[in-house]
Amino acid sequence: MAKYKAPLRDMRFVLNEVFEADKLWASMPATAEVTSDLVDAILEEGAKVAENELFPLNRTGDEEGCQFNNGDVKTPEGFKEAFTLLSESGWLGLGGNPEFGGQGMPKMLTVLFEEMLYAANTSFALYPALNSGAALCLDNHATEAMKEQLLPAMYEGRWLGTMCLTEPHSGTDLGLIRTKAEPNEDGSFNITGTKIFITGGEHDLTENIVHLVLAKLPDAPAGSRGISLFMVPKFLINEDGSVGERNPAFCGSIEHKMGIKGSATCVMNFDGAKGWMIGEPNRGLACMFTMMNYERLSIGIQGLGLGEVAYQSAMDFAQERTQSRSPTGAKYPEKSADNILVHPDVRRMALNVRAFNEAGRAFASYVGMQLDMSKYHEDAEVRNKAAALVALLTPVTKSYLTDRGLDCTITAQQIYGGQGYIREWGAEQYVRDARIAQIYEGTNGIQAMDLIGRKVVANNGEYVKLFEADIRAFMAEQADNAFVQPYLTKLDASLQTLSHVTEGVLARAKANPEEMGAAAQDYLDLFGLVTYAYLWARMVAVAAPKAADDSSGFYDAKVKVANYFYARILPKAASLAAQVDAGAETLMAIDEALFYAE
Amino acid sequence: MAKYKAPLRDMRFVLNEVFEADKLWASMPATAEVTSDLVDAILEEGAKVAENELFPLNRTGDEEGCQFNNGDVKTPEGFKEAFTLLSESGWLGLGGNPEFGGQGMPKMLTVLFEEMLYAANTSFALYPALNSGAALCLDNHATEAMKEQLLPAMYEGRWLGTMCLTEPHSGTDLGLIRTKAEPNEDGSFNITGTKIFITGGEHDLTENIVHLVLAKLPDAPAGSRGISLFMVPKFLINEDGSVGERNPAFCGSIEHKMGIKGSATCVMNFDGAKGWMIGEPNRGLACMFTMMNYERLSIGIQGLGLGEVAYQSAMDFAQERTQSRSPTGAKYPEKSADNILVHPDVRRMALNVRAFNEAGRAFASYVGMQLDMSKYHEDAEVRNKAAALVALLTPVTKSYLTDRGLDCTITAQQIYGGQGYIREWGAEQYVRDARIAQIYEGTNGIQAMDLIGRKVVANNGEYVKLFEADIRAFMAEQADNAFVQPYLTKLDASLQTLSHVTEGVLARAKANPEEMGAAAQDYLDLFGLVTYAYLWARMVAVAAPKAADDSSGFYDAKVKVANYFYARILPKAASLAAQVDAGAETLMAIDEALFYAE
Repeated sequence: MAKYKAPLRDMRFVLNEVFEADKLWASMPATAEVTSDLVDAILEEGAKVAENELFPLNRTGDEEGCQFNNGDVKTPEGFKEAFTLLSESGWLGLGGNPEFGGQGMPKMLTVLFEEMLYAANTSFALYPALNSGAALCLDNHATEAMKEQLLPAMYEGRWLGTMCLTEPHSGTDLGLIRTKAEPNEDGSFNITGTKIFITGGEHDLTENIVHLVLAKLPDAPAGSRGISLFMVPKFLINEDGSVGERNPAFCGSIEHKMGIKGSATCVMNFDGAKGWMIGEPNRGLACMFTMMNYERLSIGIQGLGLGEVAYQSAMDFAQERTQSRSPTGAKYPEKSADNILVHPDVRRMALNVRAFNEAGRAFASYVGMQLDMSKYHEDAEVRNKAAALVALLTPVTKSYLTDRGLDCTITAQQIYGGQGYIREWGAEQYVRDARIAQIYEGTNGIQAMDLIGRKVVANNGEYVKLFEADIRAFMAEQADNAFVQPYLTKLDASLQTLSHVTEGVLARAKANPEEMGAAAQDYLDLFGLVTYAYLWARMVAVAAPKAADDSSGFYDAKVKVANYFYARILPKAASLAAQVDAGAETLMAIDEALFYAE
Repeated sequence: MAKYKAPLRDMRFVLNEVFEADKLWASMPATAEVTSDLVDAILEEGAKVAENELFPLNRTGDEEGCQFNNGDVKTPEGFKEAFTLLSESGWLGLGGNPEFGGQGMPKMLTVLFEEMLYAANTSFALYPALNSGAALCLDNHATEAMKEQLLPAMYEGRWLGTMCLTEPHSGTDLGLIRTKAEPNEDGSFNITGTKIFITGGEHDLTENIVHLVLAKLPDAPAGSRGISLFMVPKFLINEDGSVGERNPAFCGSIEHKMGIKGSATCVMNFDGAKGWMIGEPNRGLACMFTMMNYERLSIGIQGLGLGEVAYQSAMDFAQERTQSRSPTGAKYPEKSADNILVHPDVRRMALNVRAFNEAGRAFASYVGMQLDMSKYHEDAEVRNKAAALVALLTPVTKSYLTDRGLDCTITAQQIYGGQGYIREWGAEQYVRDARIAQIYEGTNGIQAMDLIGRKVVANNGEYVKLFEADIRAFMAEQADNAFVQPYLTKLDASLQTLSHVTEGVLARAKANPEEMGAAAQDYLDLFGLVTYAYLWARMVAVAAPKAADDSSGFYDAKVKVANYFYARILPKAASLAAQVDAGAETLMAIDEALFYAE
């Protein structure tokens, strides 16, 4: 049984109780009118859309998939109607710039709404997710005229944006792209080349599609410093803003994939298509990174959303499923067997999923909060610190949330036993849909390299120290909160482990650059684990004092899931540290040819 | 690119060099005529069948799947022809009892052939795998008459066997089954009930199907002590052994699954079908366990085979794929980018897969060797010790090999980047095909409970001590082998960790039976990890002295993969131990109702 109810209670807890968003919003002029009541009403409405409109199309969309027919792409039955409903209700502009018709809602809200979209229907969610990132990129880097031309239509969902980077021979290494941009006399460019893996490159949801395309000018320097960014619309845009002539930006085929089958993954052939440059010549990659960083957090949230819907669906199954008796004797003697949650190992699986989902939600919100501060705070020092934390944490959100997302969907599937493998139960789709999140938008290996390379070694660990200071400030604040002291002791130990490991990598990387790559994945995992320990401590600090007076059990459960995390998940930190400390030697010793031989 | 070449060099290494199979075979009368030359010739031929006949049908079988039509099941195009070829060449009786036409080859050989089958085509491999287990069960528990009636046809592949246990409400908890067996006056029984998830319950490969069915006699005691086992043929068998009247054992439908789409997973309706009892009344589960234990090792090997083909395919991709430069400067300056294996994190992925595959192959062979000794050795003490090791290790083979199998297919898929998610490249099928192995044949949670409960706590750790003694005997033997000493130091430490953890669980389980379930999964993972450290040390002990004189690099690579395992995988033991030591408390503290609430 597949089930999804947006976890509003937990979302409110994170937003209002853990991070006291109201106080933050009130402190910044740009968000002064945002209140938790307003946000709550938006979340309630968002939940209805996700639960009632998108979730029912999730399995049918997976079964039907997208259909390619002679250049056109048909999305699964019901997607267009649902998309029209979403756009007409204004959901596509939720976080958009109010100057161009967006609603200007803070990121702390939009991360929660995004989680609902991904949980309810990941394939569907990708269309608006790419659009929001493309709009953000335009808002940051396009001319006023181009913003006026595009942003209102994109916020209204009349047009949708895409991101065209990858080419057959060039994925991670964008410096290799071959797509060419030849200047025309009117200031436009003719774009020629083939892009692959383009999400929403073609579809039937909107009257126009706005491609953001990386390409090279005729005189461009080699490598990633010779890449420019172009806006290439599917249909040219008339002066009055209406849709004009077809631009030769055609879909050549769509991919047949393991999952996200309702999301059109397109081969796009640009055959002298007209495009307009965004930002400066040869500086396109920097502009594109505005979009990529947006999408990296978003794709992290894909992992979170799928972990949540997988948990709820598995618990819905578990509630009905009886099998064997509790090891301490029958708990449901009136039934022929006990509910499976009497078994410790089934609880272990459920608690693993839950411990990661709830910490993941807090993590996405924490990063959302830093994004809001980096954008809206009046104090430049606060803005800069928040921006540094965002830079540090973005690869962690993408990689750690999606790795845990796959783990969680797999673990949830395991709770079903045999039914988990059967399509009609839905659990296996979550696994297939979660798998891509570790691959696209920069593989998780690339995220790990970004963390250790650009975000740790490049600034000699300064960003990590900022984050540690944030954690230590919380610990100092909590000196009088007796409830949280046992957790802080362990958190302190895990922070020391992280510091020690960071120092080790910094020292080794100076002597040998291969040490960064060798450390990358395990370092990121350790970083994520310590971050989650921090967030669980923050949640306990709020929840534990309230548990005794709460008949719902919400706070009690929160503390007990935290206990599980600290007792049975956090110990992994020691192993990860040892793995990083082991260094590059055993990785690089083996001759490359011996990998290929029989 | 999907690629499979049977890893014959490594198979020979394990068989002839690590375990010196020749000496063992020569020492036991039943295997005295088996030589490594004979076995090698069989492996060569088996490799040809797997590579040339089965592997080409793997992706097409996945795309086409099985078709259900009004009770009949059509396997994918080419399966029937390949099956006929296999049976006519005698492959189905490779490990069968020579008294009834089997070839009586040792398990140490058949585990290697099974690996090839699963690697080349898991869906296909399941048909003979179930048959071999069913034949083994019959050979152990059926009357001479029934064996004569069935075994020659099953070894020849004219008929195929199945295992019918699960019912919709009864999977793990077989005591709940409702299928009834009513005695007829002629000694047969009428079997009535519905079984689900029956692999090969119906298909077009053979003229008859032999179902082994668990059912309850009218006066059966409740629970698992009231289960009997019946042989229920699809077509009744005439006195001359020919196929007669259709028995009402019909396939009601087939499942639509995440993977193994070429394997027919059937709902079987027994509607008063004629059956014959195997073994004693109400003792059927014990008989069925002969088959289940066989299948558990076999399914473990499914994980291994898929890990191997996933590795080879990923390396085939990596050999062609260039992207970015080595962190220490261009390694292939003549190309536009370096091969991806210059990157430490790509090597980490490749070495992870390889370290588990090679240890897994040694593990399956080690257990195969114990099985052969438990069956054929003349010394009862040796037989008994080997049987105890088999009992101890069977749940580990099933669970650890399949968990690593999924990890390995996922990691291999990641090496492809975006192409890993696209069906035509093949990597994603290995993931989907591997996933079921953790679920069926007793979920991996059940295996973990079997290990900690029946195989550790029930005998107060005696079997574990036997295994430790085996490891310590190897360590003592190697006292003069300087090459292996550094590994033995770490192996000793990890053995001590395992002993300490085992003692802790034994002590806690006495006070609280929930401690077993709470420890189960992490304990099994720790057990598997220490076992692999042992096997890597055994491989190093043989390979390291030969490395200097070997121009092929085989032994050198073996030692270096071992170094990787010891440096970067074995550290996980510390965390697993801490997780087990943390006990049941945090698992059981949370109120069951709070798992279900929003």
